[in-house]
Amino acid sequence: MSLNSFGHLFRVTTWGESHGPALGATVDGCPPGVPIEAAAIQHWLDRRKPGQNKYTTQRREPDEVEILSGVFEGLSTGTPIQLMIRNTDQRSKDYGEIAQTFRPGHADITYWQKYGIRDYRGGGRSSARETAARVAAGGVARAALAQLVPGLTITGYMVQMGPHGIDRARFDADEIERNPFWVPDAQAAEQWAAYLDGLRKSGDSVGAVIEVVASGVPAGLGAPIYGKLDTDLAAAMMSINAVKGVEIGDGMAAAALTGSQNADEIFMGPEGPEYGSNHAGGILGGISTGQDLVVRFAVKPTSSILTPRRSITKAGQPTEVVTKGRHDPCVGIRAVPVGEAMMACVVLDHLLLHRGQIGGAGGKIG
Amino acid sequence: MSLNSFGHLFRVTTWGESHGPALGATVDGCPPGVPIEAAAIQHWLDRRKPGQNKYTTQRREPDEVEILSGVFEGLSTGTPIQLMIRNTDQRSKDYGEIAQTFRPGHADITYWQKYGIRDYRGGGRSSARETAARVAAGGVARAALAQLVPGLTITGYMVQMGPHGIDRARFDADEIERNPFWVPDAQAAEQWAAYLDGLRKSGDSVGAVIEVVASGVPAGLGAPIYGKLDTDLAAAMMSINAVKGVEIGDGMAAAALTGSQNADEIFMGPEGPEYGSNHAGGILGGISTGQDLVVRFAVKPTSSILTPRRSITKAGQPTEVVTKGRHDPCVGIRAVPVGEAMMACVVLDHLLLHRGQIGGAGGKIG
Amino acid sequence: MSLNSFGHLFRVTTWGESHGPALGATVDGCPPGVPIEAAAIQHWLDRRKPGQNKYTTQRREPDEVEILSGVFEGLSTGTPIQLMIRNTDQRSKDYGEIAQTFRPGHADITYWQKYGIRDYRGGGRSSARETAARVAAGGVARAALAQLVPGLTITGYMVQMGPHGIDRARFDADEIERNPFWVPDAQAAEQWAAYLDGLRKSGDSVGAVIEVVASGVPAGLGAPIYGKLDTDLAAAMMSINAVKGVEIGDGMAAAALTGSQNADEIFMGPEGPEYGSNHAGGILGGISTGQDLVVRFAVKPTSSILTPRRSITKAGQPTEVVTKGRHDPCVGIRAVPVGEAMMACVVLDHLLLHRGQIGGAGGKIG
Amino acid sequence: MSLNSFGHLFRVTTWGESHGPALGATVDGCPPGVPIEAAAIQHWLDRRKPGQNKYTTQRREPDEVEILSGVFEGLSTGTPIQLMIRNTDQRSKDYGEIAQTFRPGHADITYWQKYGIRDYRGGGRSSARETAARVAAGGVARAALAQLVPGLTITGYMVQMGPHGIDRARFDADEIERNPFWVPDAQAAEQWAAYLDGLRKSGDSVGAVIEVVASGVPAGLGAPIYGKLDTDLAAAMMSINAVKGVEIGDGMAAAALTGSQNADEIFMGPEGPEYGSNHAGGILGGISTGQDLVVRFAVKPTSSILTPRRSITKAGQPTEVVTKGRHDPCVGIRAVPVGEAMMACVVLDHLLLHRGQIGGAGGKIG
Repeated sequence: MSLNSFGHLFRVTTWGESHGPALGATVDGCPPGVPIEAAAIQHWLDRRKPGQNKYTTQRREPDEVEILSGVFEGLSTGTPIQLMIRNTDQRSKDYGEIAQTFRPGHADITYWQKYGIRDYRGGGRSSARETAARVAAGGVARAALAQLVPGLTITGYMVQMGPHGIDRARFDADEIERNPFWVPDAQAAEQWAAYLDGLRKSGDSVGAVIEVVASGVPAGLGAPIYGKLDTDLAAAMMSINAVKGVEIGDGMAAAALTGSQNADEIFMGPEGPEYGSNHAGGILGGISTGQDLVVRFAVKPTSSILTPRRSITKAGQPTEVVTKGRHDPCVGIRAVPVGEAMMACVVLDHLLLHRGQIGGAGGKIG
Repeated sequence: MSLNSFGHLFRVTTWGESHGPALGATVDGCPPGVPIEAAAIQHWLDRRKPGQNKYTTQRREPDEVEILSGVFEGLSTGTPIQLMIRNTDQRSKDYGEIAQTFRPGHADITYWQKYGIRDYRGGGRSSARETAARVAAGGVARAALAQLVPGLTITGYMVQMGPHGIDRARFDADEIERNPFWVPDAQAAEQWAAYLDGLRKSGDSVGAVIEVVASGVPAGLGAPIYGKLDTDLAAAMMSINAVKGVEIGDGMAAAALTGSQNADEIFMGPEGPEYGSNHAGGILGGISTGQDLVVRFAVKPTSSILTPRRSITKAGQPTEVVTKGRHDPCVGIRAVPVGEAMMACVVLDHLLLHRGQIGGAGGKIG
Repeated sequence: MSLNSFGHLFRVTTWGESHGPALGATVDGCPPGVPIEAAAIQHWLDRRKPGQNKYTTQRREPDEVEILSGVFEGLSTGTPIQLMIRNTDQRSKDYGEIAQTFRPGHADITYWQKYGIRDYRGGGRSSARETAARVAAGGVARAALAQLVPGLTITGYMVQMGPHGIDRARFDADEIERNPFWVPDAQAAEQWAAYLDGLRKSGDSVGAVIEVVASGVPAGLGAPIYGKLDTDLAAAMMSINAVKGVEIGDGMAAAALTGSQNADEIFMGPEGPEYGSNHAGGILGGISTGQDLVVRFAVKPTSSILTPRRSITKAGQPTEVVTKGRHDPCVGIRAVPVGEAMMACVVLDHLLLHRGQIGGAGGKIG
Repeated sequence: MSLNSFGHLFRVTTWGESHGPALGATVDGCPPGVPIEAAAIQHWLDRRKPGQNKYTTQRREPDEVEILSGVFEGLSTGTPIQLMIRNTDQRSKDYGEIAQTFRPGHADITYWQKYGIRDYRGGGRSSARETAARVAAGGVARAALAQLVPGLTITGYMVQMGPHGIDRARFDADEIERNPFWVPDAQAAEQWAAYLDGLRKSGDSVGAVIEVVASGVPAGLGAPIYGKLDTDLAAAMMSINAVKGVEIGDGMAAAALTGSQNADEIFMGPEGPEYGSNHAGGILGGISTGQDLVVRFAVKPTSSILTPRRSITKAGQPTEVVTKGRHDPCVGIRAVPVGEAMMACVVLDHLLLHRGQIGGAGGKIG
């Protein structure tokens, strides 16, 4: 049991703190013979990198990944792949105040209560900087998936910022890469920009909902009962910093439906079963149906805000906390590539598991 | 890696099918010296038992638990506790049709696609009957918690049935045990009864939202980064049959809040830190704060309905499915004791983990 | 982490005590579609069953296995297979003395020191009766192996009893099933019979060495670095009651060899690489070579003897212990089918792991 | 499941190849508040370091450890500790021949058969260089043990080189650090030096037996049935490169004893139970007795020798292999600090496990 690890056969262990010398991911279980290049992993890291536009923290981190093991002559060897990212922008500042005070909404107080010691610089291990390691590992997963399941795609985007959702009627996948919010709705992008500018100026922050879709996932992945595909996706997304809710398919809204509304009817298509709808989000009984896997998660507003909040010190004295510095007004934006990375890792893991447990078996239809 | 198991140090493996000879739970890691009685476990099983009122399936199962190991002279010995429940009401009926057809919304098709074989009687392993084993295991967890953390309580209840939510202003914990829906709002109970009667008569079903609260949980439980308390709770709840969404604290609604709204301010109370609110649901950075743990999950409507739905046969032929028989019109009702059981297992597991990794360390405040 | 479980993808959890109502194995990860019959599993159990000849304990246990789940219409479904064996010969006797005294060489004292409670009847969980569950699980593994790797065989036998080894020059595999010691040397069988008769009459016991060989294991199984095939075999054998040493290939004797003596030279055969010798026991770098897997383990003499030994009571008072009752004078005899079962489980597990992680890849020679 | 990891709660994942940029260990589960210094870890690494005397490989590696995470202001924080060692002496040489040929006794052929690709430079992942990472992790374990169990000591030494054992009557612990073989017998040290000089000159190599003893280990550690202390020690030692046998206490020799000889009689001492002998090696039923833990393992002779051995090429052609270069004539020498490191990791792991599962419970005697 490794509590800084996830995955069954494709197993990722992340390590490192926000302001330590480096952070990274030890990736165990990548199949051999997969082309792995630092440049390809860097591509995904650059999407998560801070300081890319005015809506993300202005901390300057190149987030350059170094591959220390597990790759030989450009191919994975089946041994652990160590991905290291050096921290470079460790601004020398006085952390004395933070060290003695607990910031509301942060893990300061619980880390202290649990461990009796914490690296308070920038949140230490509880910082969202840890997610860079996940994105790097996700790059390895994507490379393996590209080889094992050609045509499989994984796409994340924002569907809600604060109280403002997207209009699904205007959904345009091409729009995702064109705006700073990874939102598939050009009109929403404009509105959100104005809304976030206002929040940022007022020193406040806001939450978000991210949706991640995997297309081309084969039917049959998932390991009931306690390694279900949706169970592992829920854990993967909930483990991301600041996430407070996870939905598969219709999610919480499924509660309001009747059985007749909710049933995804099945038809025989030219290449196998097809479905009339996807309330289930591509998973039945914990196993993939072959439809799109649809996962959503809610990210709470950044807790580091300029608005003063009441708190206490280590000594138990009342105080007021204002968090200055370089913070994301909507940390959900940078959670998009993180959600994609987690999806890639979970799908690859279940592909390997399925191959191990079932081999070429599995039932045919038609 | 055991894919029919959950938990780190308190580890539960469930086994058994809906219509096999028996089902049960192998409970490994219960601390020694805990009073374990079949009668106490039976108490929790009886709450989940089918056929208790007209809103749950009329299948007659006594669900009597037998303790086969791990308990000596009334006390746990620290060795695996085997809890077995014999299936008794395995009505002899013709399953031929179900065996050849895939019921929409059920795991019939995915189990077939994955395994190439399935026990089709009553859903086999994918039946919600498996949750009886969880409730039995939860009974063991509750007994251990009672010894380790006196005063800790775990309470589940419904907060939404179909489109009808409760009124939090009318919240009355005493009401929970008085109505067939475990709903803490007498007025809602009445409305829901009428609503569900109508649905049942029309042969339809409906979803629900369940909330589970644990009070008296010590601060410091949770193992960042990938064994966070909320991560494990999300996985635990998502693994329950028909669950499509999981929320901690404010859950999906956190997305709509600003940082200043969402911050749970901290004050010094007579016995330690206190909070002005609980948007976080008792968890910060994956670690318990000492506040109430608040988890919600959405259960989709029962897929077994009398309304005909289109589907296909194993041979790929179109067909129409009507599921007669003894089904819950709102399977969410019986998910309440299941959610409680999962909460009990996760909290105990993290208590043991914390004890192992941290011992008596941990920071003091004030 | 389940501490009463072993295996990665083929995962066995045993449960039960010597004198409780039942014991058994929860077998998770058996591939679907494997023919599993109680009678076939019974075949293996009968070989380990007590009371078969005068050299094993006269406790009368039918050791009848009941399959409670995971098998449908004679085939495994991919879900957990629960194998239960009822204890029937729980002689009513006064355990009062044992309960207060620690028998030298037994786990009485350590279970007490660890757990503060123990089921003292017949050793409780620490009894070698637990190995019946392993043999049942091994029966499932053998069935799966028969389907996945036709021609693979697993054979265990004794090569030493007390100070008396076999003569390898007289090795005759057919002899194994003809004598009560599973020894492949008819002359040794005779000598051992006389030797053991003497020991039994004097109320003493003796140790043994068992060798288990798997033939027909494909090259490539094993997961370096910490899931090596030899690592997992060493753990599997060392976990058997009373085992004090494990060897692969030349084992401890390898220390006395020079590199030129120890090198297994490689030749190209008609169907792939062949080796001039097998000092390595079929494993290089933790991965199978395709040669015979050769494992040996030493079992210490039964600790339950009639010779008085000095010990203490729970109260710390000096006492003398004589263990009357129905005990094996050489517990190593019945360890033979147990060693075979562990070999079957480990080989199947690594076959599934290899399939999951590598798929059809792997290098060709020639 | 991470196949490059070991341990339950104190979990070590090693990564890296012989001639890659770096190798290291990701150490998860170190308790917080433990003083961790690079210099202290370096102390242990220096003992394993190549090139220290004429009996070990002349490869020049400083093996300098860098702590990249998990330590703040000199103390462990409870988060993963990343220990990195850069490879520096990667001699530019032509590996073309090795790449196409399989060296007898090496993992060349099995890695190729398994993965279809391998880093052939210096053995890649299968090189004993990987054990440097274990020694670094062992340094962390020792630091934690020093805090948790003051007075606990772990000492490894050689007891046999080739056919030459030590004389236990001359056992002198102080001698261990005085000779290049870590042998507690000055006379043996002299003999072995002459013997090994001869072997080295003839281009041959030889095996060895190492014994590791842990003193001061509390009674009660070990998690039956499949996480027994001896099971985990057997796995830990067998996972070390070139190990072919593992013994606990009397080990293989226990087979030749009678029950009356083997029984470790128990007496009441001033501070608890004491034993008249230690045939059991400090473990009964998988749980520590409080006596010395005694483990031995046999290391086969180095496979890289100057004596020509027959083998085949990738193309299946016959060839002859002579391994020139800088190799240890007795790789067992440098296995001593590795065995100590594994012992430290396993004991710490079981200490944490025991604390988690049992807390302060456990039975008293007297």
